[in-house]
Amino acid sequence: MAADGTDQRALQYEQTLMYGRYTQELGVYAKEEAARLRESGQRRSVSERSRNLDLLEYNKGRCAKCRICTVRCQKFLISRVGEDWIFLILLGLFMALVSWVVDFCIAICLQAQKWMYGGLDSNVFLQYLAWVTYPVVLITFSAGFTQILAPQAVGSGIPEMKTILRGVVLKEYLTFKTFVAKVIGLTCALGSGMPLGKEGPFVHIASLCAALLSKFMSLFGGIYENESRNIEMLAAACAVGVGCCFAAPIGGVLFSIEVTSTFFAVRNYWRGFFAATFSAFIFRVLAVWNKDEETITALFKTRFRLDFPFDLQELPAFAVIGIASGFGGALFVYFNRLIVQFIRKQKAINKFLMKKRLLYPALVTLLVSTLTFPPGFGQFMAGKLTQKESLVTLLDNRTWCKEGIAEEFDYIGNSQAWQHPQVNVFVTLVLFIVMKFWMSALATTIPVPCGAFMPVFVIGAAFGRLVGESMAAWFPDGINTDGTIYPIVPGGYAVVGAAALSGAVTHTVSTAVIVFELTGQISHILPVMIAVILANAVAQSLQPSLYDSIIRIKKLPYLPELGWGHHEKYNIRVEDIMVRDVRYITLNCCYRDLHNVLLTGHLKTLALVESAASMILLGSIERAQLQALLSLQLGRPRRLEFIRERDAAEKKRMSVVSNSDCEYDHQRTSQEVRFQISTEESSFSPTRPISPKPLKPALKRPSVVERPIDIPTSLQDQSGNSLKNLFCASPDAEMMEEDGDVEDDMTLREIAEWEEMQLDEQVNFNNCKIDPAPFQLVERTSLHKTHTIFSLLGLDHAYVTSIGRLIGVVSLKELRKAIEGSVTVKGVKVRPPLASFRDSGTSSSETDATELHKLWSRQKSASLPREHAPSECDEKSQ
Amino acid sequence: MAADGTDQRALQYEQTLMYGRYTQELGVYAKEEAARLRESGQRRSVSERSRNLDLLEYNKGRCAKCRICTVRCQKFLISRVGEDWIFLILLGLFMALVSWVVDFCIAICLQAQKWMYGGLDSNVFLQYLAWVTYPVVLITFSAGFTQILAPQAVGSGIPEMKTILRGVVLKEYLTFKTFVAKVIGLTCALGSGMPLGKEGPFVHIASLCAALLSKFMSLFGGIYENESRNIEMLAAACAVGVGCCFAAPIGGVLFSIEVTSTFFAVRNYWRGFFAATFSAFIFRVLAVWNKDEETITALFKTRFRLDFPFDLQELPAFAVIGIASGFGGALFVYFNRLIVQFIRKQKAINKFLMKKRLLYPALVTLLVSTLTFPPGFGQFMAGKLTQKESLVTLLDNRTWCKEGIAEEFDYIGNSQAWQHPQVNVFVTLVLFIVMKFWMSALATTIPVPCGAFMPVFVIGAAFGRLVGESMAAWFPDGINTDGTIYPIVPGGYAVVGAAALSGAVTHTVSTAVIVFELTGQISHILPVMIAVILANAVAQSLQPSLYDSIIRIKKLPYLPELGWGHHEKYNIRVEDIMVRDVRYITLNCCYRDLHNVLLTGHLKTLALVESAASMILLGSIERAQLQALLSLQLGRPRRLEFIRERDAAEKKRMSVVSNSDCEYDHQRTSQEVRFQISTEESSFSPTRPISPKPLKPALKRPSVVERPIDIPTSLQDQSGNSLKNLFCASPDAEMMEEDGDVEDDMTLREIAEWEEMQLDEQVNFNNCKIDPAPFQLVERTSLHKTHTIFSLLGLDHAYVTSIGRLIGVVSLKELRKAIEGSVTVKGVKVRPPLASFRDSGTSSSETDATELHKLWSRQKSASLPREHAPSECDEKSQ
Repeated sequence: MAADGTDQRALQYEQTLMYGRYTQELGVYAKEEAARLRESGQRRSVSERSRNLDLLEYNKGRCAKCRICTVRCQKFLISRVGEDWIFLILLGLFMALVSWVVDFCIAICLQAQKWMYGGLDSNVFLQYLAWVTYPVVLITFSAGFTQILAPQAVGSGIPEMKTILRGVVLKEYLTFKTFVAKVIGLTCALGSGMPLGKEGPFVHIASLCAALLSKFMSLFGGIYENESRNIEMLAAACAVGVGCCFAAPIGGVLFSIEVTSTFFAVRNYWRGFFAATFSAFIFRVLAVWNKDEETITALFKTRFRLDFPFDLQELPAFAVIGIASGFGGALFVYFNRLIVQFIRKQKAINKFLMKKRLLYPALVTLLVSTLTFPPGFGQFMAGKLTQKESLVTLLDNRTWCKEGIAEEFDYIGNSQAWQHPQVNVFVTLVLFIVMKFWMSALATTIPVPCGAFMPVFVIGAAFGRLVGESMAAWFPDGINTDGTIYPIVPGGYAVVGAAALSGAVTHTVSTAVIVFELTGQISHILPVMIAVILANAVAQSLQPSLYDSIIRIKKLPYLPELGWGHHEKYNIRVEDIMVRDVRYITLNCCYRDLHNVLLTGHLKTLALVESAASMILLGSIERAQLQALLSLQLGRPRRLEFIRERDAAEKKRMSVVSNSDCEYDHQRTSQEVRFQISTEESSFSPTRPISPKPLKPALKRPSVVERPIDIPTSLQDQSGNSLKNLFCASPDAEMMEEDGDVEDDMTLREIAEWEEMQLDEQVNFNNCKIDPAPFQLVERTSLHKTHTIFSLLGLDHAYVTSIGRLIGVVSLKELRKAIEGSVTVKGVKVRPPLASFRDSGTSSSETDATELHKLWSRQKSASLPREHAPSECDEKSQ
Repeated sequence: MAADGTDQRALQYEQTLMYGRYTQELGVYAKEEAARLRESGQRRSVSERSRNLDLLEYNKGRCAKCRICTVRCQKFLISRVGEDWIFLILLGLFMALVSWVVDFCIAICLQAQKWMYGGLDSNVFLQYLAWVTYPVVLITFSAGFTQILAPQAVGSGIPEMKTILRGVVLKEYLTFKTFVAKVIGLTCALGSGMPLGKEGPFVHIASLCAALLSKFMSLFGGIYENESRNIEMLAAACAVGVGCCFAAPIGGVLFSIEVTSTFFAVRNYWRGFFAATFSAFIFRVLAVWNKDEETITALFKTRFRLDFPFDLQELPAFAVIGIASGFGGALFVYFNRLIVQFIRKQKAINKFLMKKRLLYPALVTLLVSTLTFPPGFGQFMAGKLTQKESLVTLLDNRTWCKEGIAEEFDYIGNSQAWQHPQVNVFVTLVLFIVMKFWMSALATTIPVPCGAFMPVFVIGAAFGRLVGESMAAWFPDGINTDGTIYPIVPGGYAVVGAAALSGAVTHTVSTAVIVFELTGQISHILPVMIAVILANAVAQSLQPSLYDSIIRIKKLPYLPELGWGHHEKYNIRVEDIMVRDVRYITLNCCYRDLHNVLLTGHLKTLALVESAASMILLGSIERAQLQALLSLQLGRPRRLEFIRERDAAEKKRMSVVSNSDCEYDHQRTSQEVRFQISTEESSFSPTRPISPKPLKPALKRPSVVERPIDIPTSLQDQSGNSLKNLFCASPDAEMMEEDGDVEDDMTLREIAEWEEMQLDEQVNFNNCKIDPAPFQLVERTSLHKTHTIFSLLGLDHAYVTSIGRLIGVVSLKELRKAIEGSVTVKGVKVRPPLASFRDSGTSSSETDATELHKLWSRQKSASLPREHAPSECDEKSQ
C-alpha cells in the first residue's frame, strides 16, 4: 500500500506539472490538512497504546501477568471514569453537598440575626442598629468580594448560561475563581435576609461545577475535551442546579430546558433527569441524616385534603389569579429593567456609584431592612419572617379568616406574624405584596450573586393567599355542592399564585411542576396549569422574560426567539439581511492584504476564497491563525535570518563564482513547501482524485486585477529561481538556534523597508488550520430557516454562497436585527428595506429588488475600492 | 419603477446577446421562478382584498357603513380563527369529547359482558360461551371493520406519528376514513376486555383530528396550509392525545415529546401544554357533569399518607423494582417482536392467515378469554376484573397481607377478586403477572387499533404490588425509625412498578409524571424517579423501545437515534456513506435522458446540474414535475398539433411561395419561451445582476460529450430558424380547442417515429418548479453533524457538494445504514469500508482512501456508461 501511495504521488506530481493544477490542489490540501490536524490526536492515542503493549512484551518476567492485570484494571477504570453516568453522579453528589452546605450556612446567618435582634429587645434603637447593620455588612462584603475575585459571578447566571449553551464562548464565566466568588457571595447575600433567590445562581454554580469537573476528569481520560459533549453536560448541569436547589428533579429539568434552550435534543433528556434526581435525592438524604427530617419529603410540604381539593366553581378565581399574575410578572420585569436603566442614564448617580461601588448595595440594603424592621413598618408586613418562613405560613392549609373576622383564627407559631392587633389580615397581605414587589425588583439589581425566582415565588404565594382568603371570607361554608360542606382552602390559592407569578416572570410553564414537587402535592394540578398558562399568555405578550430582559440589558450575544405568530417572517430571505461586503482573503493574497484585513475587521473567522474574481469559498480561517502567520512573517527571528543570509550572500558574491550561488538556491527551494510552486513537496499533498476540474479555466486566470503591485506572480514562482526565494525560507528550529550568532545591525529605516518587502510576499497557508466546511446558506434561504439552523447548530455566522461563490455573510448580529425588527414592534412591523419589494404584487418586483441590490453593491464597491464586489471585477475581467 | 424595470430588461437582453450568458441565466431563472410561484399565493390574497374594497366603494349607498362594519367584523373573525390558540382550544375540546365518548362506550360494552356473564350463572358452559363469544365477536368486528375501511388505523399509531413528525409523508394516515376506523375499531377492541391500551391510538386520533381540523379551518383562512405549522400542530396534537387519555397534561406533553421527537423546539412547548391542559380539563369536567365524580380529581386517585410516604431504607427495594422492570420491559419488547416475526416466517401459517385475515384475531381472543374465564383459570389471576378495576385495586393504600397471612385482610369490593380460598395472594399476583405478560404481548399483535401502554402499566403495578406485599410481610411493623411505627404501603410500590415497567417498554422517563397525574399524589417522587431511571438504563441497553421496534418491523422510513456513547461516530464522514452514483439531469439534456432517468431510479427528487462536465448543482426537481414534462412532450395534444402543422406546411409548400413560410416561423418563434435561444422572451426572465460569472468559460463549453446523438445543439437553437422549431411550440389553450378539427391519421409506426423525434429534443424547464436551495453538505461533514442536521430539519436527502459541484447524495437510507452499522452491534463496531483507512495512523492513509474512491468511481462509470463520473469526463475534456 505504501508503494502504491508513492506511485500515486509521482503520478500526481506529473499531472501537477502538466496541467498546472496548483490552485485546485490548495483548496483540497486545506481540507486534508485540517482533517489531518484533527486526526493527529487520535493517532497519538493509538501510538501510545501500542507503546504500552510493547512495554508489556518487553517486561515478560515473573510478574508480567501481574502487571498486565494491573494495566488492564487501570485501563478499565479509566474507561469507566470516562462514561457519562459517572460524571453525572459526581456532579449530582457535589452539587447536593454544595446546596446543603449553602443552605446550612444561610440558616446559621439568619439565626444569628434573629438572635442578635432578640437579645437586644431592651432597646429599640440598638435592635434597629443590629437589624440593619447585619445585612448591610453581609451584602457589602458579598458585593466587594465578588467584585474583587470575579465580577462575572454577579447576578443570576441564567442569562449567561443561556448564551453559553447557545454556543457563544463567554470568557471567565466558567472558572474556579468565579465558582468561589459565586458560592461565598451567594451565601452572604442570602444570609442577609434580603429578598433574593438562590435558584439562578445555582444554575450557574452547577455549570461551573460541570466545567471544572470536566477539566479534572480529562486528566484521566481523553474524551472530556469534546466540545459538543461539554455543551450536553452543561445542559444537564443546569437541570442539576435547579433540581438540587428545590429538590425538584422533574421541574428542574423542565425549567432548565425552558429557560436555557431553544431546541432541545431529546437524547440528552436522560442526563438531566439522572443527575437532577440523584442530586435531589442526596440533598434530601443529607437533611434526613442531619435529623432535620424524618424521611425524604418535599421541601415545603402541604397537607391539603385529597378527596375534594377544589370545587369546579372556584376555577374562575384561579383564572383571575393567573391573569393578574401575568400583568404582575410583566410589571416586575419592566420595573426591574427601569431601575437598571434609570441608574445607568443618570450620569451623576452613575459616576458617583462607579467610584464607590459598594455604596449602592449598602444603600439598597439599608432601605429594605429599615422598612422590614419588625417593631417599625415591618409589623404590618410580617417583616420578622424570613423568606422560607413566609412561604411555609402562606402555604398553610388552615384558613386565616372566617366570615371576614380575622381574629377568630388561632394563630400558631410563625403564622402569628401575619396577625396584627389593629390591622386586618388582608391589609397585612396587601402591604406585604406591594412592599416586597418593589423591594425584590430593587434588590435583584444589587451586584451580588442572586436570583429573583424565590422572591417572586413568595410574592405570588402571598397574592394567591390574598385571593384565597377573600374567597374564604366570601363563601364561609364553601361553594355549595351536593350537601357536603367543603370549606375553601386558601393555601391552594397560594400554590396557584406562586406558580403563576413565577411562571409569568420567567416565561415558563414548568413552574407548575416545581410547585408540585416543592409542596409534595399534585391535587391542584388543573388550577395551577390553567393559571400558569394564562399568566404566560399575558406576560409573554407584554414583556420579554426576566432572563431575556437581562440579556438585552447586558447586551449578551444571544439570538432572540421568533415570536408566537411568526408567519410573516417566511418571506424575508437571507439575501435581504446578509452583509454583502464580506471580509475575505484570497489564496494568493500577500501579507499586506492580510495585514489590512486584520486591521479593518474584527470578525473571529475570515473566509478564504479562491480568488477575488471567482470568489469560490474554500474554507474559513480563524483570526488568531492569521495573526500568527503575520507575526511569523514579520517577526525578529525571520529578520535575523534575513540578515544572516544577506551577509552570507554578500560574502559569497565577493569571493566565489555565481555557480555556487545557483546551487545554494536550489537547495533552498527543496526545503520550501509552497503551493504556488510546483516543487516535489507540493505534489506530496494528498489530492482528491474524484474532484472534477471544470472550474479550471476560471481558476487559472491570474488574479492580478486586485493587486497592481503584485510582484511574485505565479509564473515567476514556477521558475523557482527568482531572487524572492531568498526571503521565503520557512523558519526552522535549527535556524532559530543560530539567532545568537547574528548581530541585529539593521537601522529602523532598513527594518521598515524589510517589513514592506515582507508584506509584499504571498501568504503561505501551509501550517494554517483551515476549516474546510464552514456553514453555508443560499441567498434564498428564508429567515425562519436561517433562525432555525442558527439556533439548532449554535452557529455564530454562516456564509451565503451561490453555486460555490461567496456572496455574503450572515452573523448573529444581522439575524438579531432582522428578527427584532420584525418581532418586537407588534403591528407596525419594521422590515428590512428589500423585503417589501417582493410583496408589491407585480411581477417586476423581483427585478427591481435585484436591480436595487446591484446598485447598492456597486455603490459599496465604489466607496470601498479595496473590497471588490464580485459583479464589478467580473465584468472587468471579461 | 415599471419603466426602470423595462430598461433593465432591455439592458439585460443586450448583455445576454453580447456575452451569451444563457446558461448562467437559467440557474437564476429557476430560482426566481420558484420564488414567483411561492409568492403568487400572497399576491392573490392581496388582489382579493383590494377587490373587496372596490366593491365597497361601488356600493356607497345608505347601508354602506353597515356593510363595511359587517365585512370588518367578518375579517376580524377570520383573522382570529386563524390564530393558534383557537385551533388548539377546538382541538382540545373535540378530543376531550372523543375521549369521553369512547370511554363511555367502552364502559357500556364491559358492563354488558358482565351482565351477560352474571345473568347466566346457572350454567357454567353457557357462561363460558357468553364470556368467550362476546370479545371474539367484538375483536373480529373491529379487525374486519378496520381492514375494510382503513388498514392504516391498525396498531398503536405512535410509530407512524414519529415518522410523520420526522417529516416523512405517509399516505392515508391522516384521513377522515382512518379517523372513523380508528375510533370505532378502538372502542370495540377495548370494549372486548382484552389487555389492550387506548393511549397509542389516541395519539393517532388526536393527530387525525388536528389534520382534519386544519383542513376544515383552511376554508376560512389561508395560513393553515403552511407545512411547518402543520408539523407544529401535529406535535401539539400528540400531547393532547396522551393528555386527554389519562387526564395528564404535563405527563402527556413530556411523553409525546419523548416518544415522537428527536429535537424539540421549546417555542412549541406552550402549544402542547395549552391544548393538553384544556383537553384534560374538559375531559374531567365531563365526568363531573355526568355525576361520575364530585369534582375534578385524578383518574386513579390514591390516598397514601402524606407525612411519611416511605422510609429511606425502603429505597433498595424500589431500586430492585426498577432494575427488574428494566429487564421485564426489554423482554416484553423482544417477546412482542418475536411473535410477529414467528408468524411472518412460518410460511404455512402466514399463508393461511393471509387468506382468513380475521381468524388470527379471533383465535388469539379465544385463547386469552378462555384463560381469564373467572370460574376457570381466571379465578387464580383475578380474571373477572377489568383492566381499570385491577389497577384501582392494585393502587389501594391498604395492605393485603399482614405477617404473611393473607386471610387477615378484610377484602372489600373488587379487591376480593385477588383473594382465593386455596391460594395465597402472592401466587395470585405472580400468576396474574406471568399470564398478563404474554397475553399483552400477544394481544398487541392483533391487527386492531390498540396500544400497549395500559396493559404494561397494569402489569408493572402488579409487580410493584407483589414486591410491596412481600416487604410488608417481611417487615410487618414497618422498618424501624425513631420510635413511631410507619407500616409499609404496598400501594406505593405498585405506583413505582407501574411507572418503571411502562418507562422501560417505551424508553421514557415521563411515565413518572404520568403516574403522579394519574394517582394525584407526588409523594413517592424520589422512588419513582429512581426506579424509572434504572429501568430505562437497563432496558435501553438491551432492546429498542416498543415503538422503535414496531418501526423496524414495519420498516417505516425513520432515522434511528445515535447511541448513548456516540463518540466513535465523530470520525465517519459523509464521503464514506454517500452514494456517488447520483441520478441527475442536466440543463441541456433531452427528453430521452429524462425518460431514462425516470425509468431507472425511483427517488422523489432529482438533482439538476449545470452540465455533466461541470456538475454544478443548480437545484432539485420533483419527480412528478419531470413526469408532467415528459407526458406533456409525448402527449396526444402535442401530436395532433404536429399533425395539423405538418398538414399546413404541406399545403403551403404545395400552393404558395416559401416567403410566407418564413413569416410563419418567425411568428412561432416569438411565442416560444426557451432558455437556449436568446429571444426577447428569454431575456425577460429576471436576472440576478450581482451574481458574478467567473464560471462562464467552463459553462460555455458545449456538453456534447455525453450525448453523441444530440441534434439540437445550442448553436442551432440560436439561429432560431431550424426545422426543429416546428415541434417546439408550447401547447396553448386555444390550440387545444382546435384538437377536434384534426384527424389522428398517424400509424403506430409513425407515432413511434414521432415519439423518438420528440425524445431527442432538449427539455424545456420553463414551467417546471425547481427548488433552488436543496440542502447541501460537504464531503467532510461528520456523521454526527449529518445526523443532527437530518433530524433537526427533517430532511429526506441531502446533496454532497464540493465547491458547488455535485459529488454525491446522502439519503435517510444511507444514514440509517451507517448509524445502525456502528450503533446496534455493541463493542464490535461495523464501520463503513473507508472509515478505517483514516485511523491507520500513517500520513499516506488519506491518499489511499481517496485513491480507492477514485478506483471505485472509475469502476462504477465503466459499468454504467450513462452515468458520467465527473473525474472521468473531466480528464477527457482536457
